[in-house]
Amino acid sequence: MNRSCIFCKIVLGEIPSIKIAETTKSYAFMDIAPTAKGHVVIIPKYHGEKLHNLPDEHLADLLPLAKKIAIASKLDISGLDGEGYNLLQNNGSIAHQVVPHVHFHLIPKRSEDTGLQVGWPQPKLSESLEEIAAEITKNLA
Amino acid sequence: MNRSCIFCKIVLGEIPSIKIAETTKSYAFMDIAPTAKGHVVIIPKYHGEKLHNLPDEHLADLLPLAKKIAIASKLDISGLDGEGYNLLQNNGSIAHQVVPHVHFHLIPKRSEDTGLQVGWPQPKLSESLEEIAAEITKNLA
Repeated sequence: MNRSCIFCKIVLGEIPSIKIAETTKSYAFMDIAPTAKGHVVIIPKYHGEKLHNLPDEHLADLLPLAKKIAIASKLDISGLDGEGYNLLQNNGSIAHQVVPHVHFHLIPKRSEDTGLQVGWPQPKLSESLEEIAAEITKNLA
Repeated sequence: MNRSCIFCKIVLGEIPSIKIAETTKSYAFMDIAPTAKGHVVIIPKYHGEKLHNLPDEHLADLLPLAKKIAIASKLDISGLDGEGYNLLQNNGSIAHQVVPHVHFHLIPKRSEDTGLQVGWPQPKLSESLEEIAAEITKNLA
């Protein structure tokens, strides 16, 4: 916990939130500036700024909770058609992170004009995918 | 496994991929149409179409692997400034899902014009956040 972090204060109850669910490791609440009806934020109770700062056991807890909330939000549609949802986690200002405490956005996608809008530029890369993969896997070894 | 699923075929080695890493439950490979250098796709070896179709133990395995790859990709910058990255998982065509097998995009964000671009409309909702939360939590009980 970080006493100056707004999301830690939410977990501690020092700042109010509209709680959806919690586990021993994670806490979920309504986003106060939703981009769609039912936009929920899921955070670890552990203070980590970015994904790579979280211990594995806290990471492991988040997606099962996201699944439960997606089902309770009646987003569990079969097939690609019909209502959808996005799960988004941002790291760094350039990647749209505002609060420096890991958070996952669970965002229903029911229409083109509400919910997450995704842009997907296709830059020409100067290296091959094999060369880029070799850079990454060398650091995994 | 679903014998007609392109991602299951990648896991089985029937369709080639540029592998980054794998665990007993998950497989990571280079996106063949990357939106940034080092754009990696992480999938469960279990065939589930959407997030809510995955068993919890497969969900629990994905984020620790994403963390390892983010670190190996040298995206583990401290502070909000500097290089960032996004983790995105889409469910349903309307939410930009194309392959009907759960996949997470780990996308480096190094510049405004490459990587994920995010639009965040702010619709006026006809219900209060408390009312919407009550609908969801009633289904969690």
